[in-house]
Amino acid sequence: MDYQMIHTCIRVMDLEKSEKFYQQAFGFTISRKKDFPEYKFTLSYMSAPGSPFELELTYNYDQQQPYELGNGYSHLAVGVKDLEGSHTRHQELGLNPKPLKGLAGGAPKFYFVEDPDGYLVEVVRV
Amino acid sequence: MDYQMIHTCIRVMDLEKSEKFYQQAFGFTISRKKDFPEYKFTLSYMSAPGSPFELELTYNYDQQQPYELGNGYSHLAVGVKDLEGSHTRHQELGLNPKPLKGLAGGAPKFYFVEDPDGYLVEVVRV
Repeated sequence: MDYQMIHTCIRVMDLEKSEKFYQQAFGFTISRKKDFPEYKFTLSYMSAPGSPFELELTYNYDQQQPYELGNGYSHLAVGVKDLEGSHTRHQELGLNPKPLKGLAGGAPKFYFVEDPDGYLVEVVRV
Repeated sequence: MDYQMIHTCIRVMDLEKSEKFYQQAFGFTISRKKDFPEYKFTLSYMSAPGSPFELELTYNYDQQQPYELGNGYSHLAVGVKDLEGSHTRHQELGLNPKPLKGLAGGAPKFYFVEDPDGYLVEVVRV
């Protein structure tokens, strides 16, 4: 039986703000968006051009408090060729990316940036 | 600047148990695995055959308590053609899949199954 990973889903407090963040930071576009008033939620699916994998954003009408992010889920990773250029661009956009890092004393290979709800996105050199 | 989603990362309590779950339930294989004793963690990357997107499992040596999953992160979704066959197979494997569901009175289109740490995986008909 053939399985493929097709999306990852996070709950967000402000759908438009999150959509704008992922569009601005990573060039993702909204591939599908559907409102389910009977369940009191809206689903927005975003993806990178040419890639089938989607980020699903769930907006629950009645959520009042910020979501508890816990310490289990870690991050979504996004690959880019020009890591330093991306870091500079994210700084210029005012997204406060964390410093460039490498593991075990190696050359810089990644950095993290927080989305509007505080979820970490790892930007990785590919 | 061109960005692609490349992996999603969760922290797990028992790496071999999680690897076995994702292998058995979804046919994912370990594409890379690396131990970082200096940081006291091991990273295991799993993927579906033929797909570049990976699930990163992080095992922290010193984690004593189960991770707090919170209510922000929702799930990873996995697509399969034969949804009913997959549901039966997951039942037979003793994975206790939740009932098949459709939204808004529609035909069954998905179900959820929990991984060993309690993270939800949505199995979606594609």
